[in-house]
Amino acid sequence: MGRVTARRPSTRVELVDGPPSVVARPDTVTVEEPLEIRVDGRPLAVTMRTPGDDFDLTIGFLVTEGLLAGADDVATLMHCTDTGDDGSPTFNVVDIQLQPGVSIPDVGLQRSFVTTSSCGVCGKTSIDAVRLRSPYDLTTDATVVSPQVLAGLPDALRDHQKVFDRTGGLHAAGLFTADGKLLAVREDVGRHNAVDKIVGWAAREHRLPLAATVLMVSGRISFELAQKALMAGIPVLAAVSAPSSLAIDLAEEFGLTLVGFLRPPRMTVYAGAGRLALGA
Amino acid sequence: MGRVTARRPSTRVELVDGPPSVVARPDTVTVEEPLEIRVDGRPLAVTMRTPGDDFDLTIGFLVTEGLLAGADDVATLMHCTDTGDDGSPTFNVVDIQLQPGVSIPDVGLQRSFVTTSSCGVCGKTSIDAVRLRSPYDLTTDATVVSPQVLAGLPDALRDHQKVFDRTGGLHAAGLFTADGKLLAVREDVGRHNAVDKIVGWAAREHRLPLAATVLMVSGRISFELAQKALMAGIPVLAAVSAPSSLAIDLAEEFGLTLVGFLRPPRMTVYAGAGRLALGA
Repeated sequence: MGRVTARRPSTRVELVDGPPSVVARPDTVTVEEPLEIRVDGRPLAVTMRTPGDDFDLTIGFLVTEGLLAGADDVATLMHCTDTGDDGSPTFNVVDIQLQPGVSIPDVGLQRSFVTTSSCGVCGKTSIDAVRLRSPYDLTTDATVVSPQVLAGLPDALRDHQKVFDRTGGLHAAGLFTADGKLLAVREDVGRHNAVDKIVGWAAREHRLPLAATVLMVSGRISFELAQKALMAGIPVLAAVSAPSSLAIDLAEEFGLTLVGFLRPPRMTVYAGAGRLALGA
Repeated sequence: MGRVTARRPSTRVELVDGPPSVVARPDTVTVEEPLEIRVDGRPLAVTMRTPGDDFDLTIGFLVTEGLLAGADDVATLMHCTDTGDDGSPTFNVVDIQLQPGVSIPDVGLQRSFVTTSSCGVCGKTSIDAVRLRSPYDLTTDATVVSPQVLAGLPDALRDHQKVFDRTGGLHAAGLFTADGKLLAVREDVGRHNAVDKIVGWAAREHRLPLAATVLMVSGRISFELAQKALMAGIPVLAAVSAPSSLAIDLAEEFGLTLVGFLRPPRMTVYAGAGRLALGA
């Protein structure tokens, strides 16, 4: 659909000696649009996202929300024929039809999801509901990743980011093997969406759980991102920036390796340091 | 409550010639915990936030969601006596009691909010519901802000950030007068929470609408942040990083001035450039 970036008028101002320099010119910005997810015709969630990989986003969202076991439960996925103000299709509604006999938990009344571009899982009305139960046990995942491999991931992620350099507005998530081979990269205005797009891709490829992989994200690690990694069976989560207290606590409890401030030649391990095989 | 930061064990790794340098030491991280918002005893929303200013966050959330006109509608606000695993209060539930005769729209069935640390407004089940209607008209706000004043805001925000330098995990939002005087700064793992805390503070101080002010945020400008500024009557929104397409479109439509990439001596104006009085 080619709507990852858009052009908008802009005015660039630079303070110099004398009157400011003012230049009017079009700028390339990241597209953010709502995606409505329907299951068997019923609206379930709205997420603010960058268009593209919408089917993967839909499947990944449902999987990391614990509502769907995998892609085999899905019969069909289609963009609805909703139209915008100009009468042309918006491609902003995805309907997922489940296989006969498959249903998702009835979240209609207790949980109606909306996620913004910087928000993932939404719709719980009590604190207990924030925690999901992962079908996978990471404590038995014997993956070992060397710090040298981790140190190579930020550059590998940047090399594969197609849009970031043009807009400065996209988050990226990259999935790597334990020896640093890139499996997938996705970008979105929402970091959680980039992760959901990767998990949805993996579900379609029958790669769940994502054992012996490393997920690298731009930015920070919130509770939610750690939870998404757990729900996909990813044993190592790394990020350029800081983790939150609750992300660390969750990782510690469920055996997820958490690496923050991954800025070669340095990194900080907050949980599961055993997988880095650092010796003593 | 003093729970803005917490200490967690960490392992710092540095790649050097020979075996990596490995140092185990406690690290200071940003606290992220769920806050459940109840209205007259009924759960309405859960947001992942950094503890502190919870009452302002609650009021600001309800105001920027269009559910509450201002603080005068509120009779009492209190932390519930919920307890954690250790039996001590968590201070993670706030109950807001409305004035007699005041009610919020019944969102119980259609909209149950959950917001994560990077998510604001959640709970809409259709795309139409993503847009709220602001009670304030920005097109008539004749505020003028000089680019020189804007250029001073990033440093002013950083100077007042109490936690960022220690954890690298907090977003900040600062409210300024049109001539650059700081009115309020709030920090949170969620940028939208930092903004809600400012709006809630302003509501309590009877400062809504926030005419002739500038809101400066760390990071990027999503649709949601632009909408929160509109709902509080803030005429100028500035950020260190990029705006999204939809944030620009919303700003353009409703007369909000949007300044991105505010990195002195440069900045880029995406909407409402008239307020910068740049001349021709």
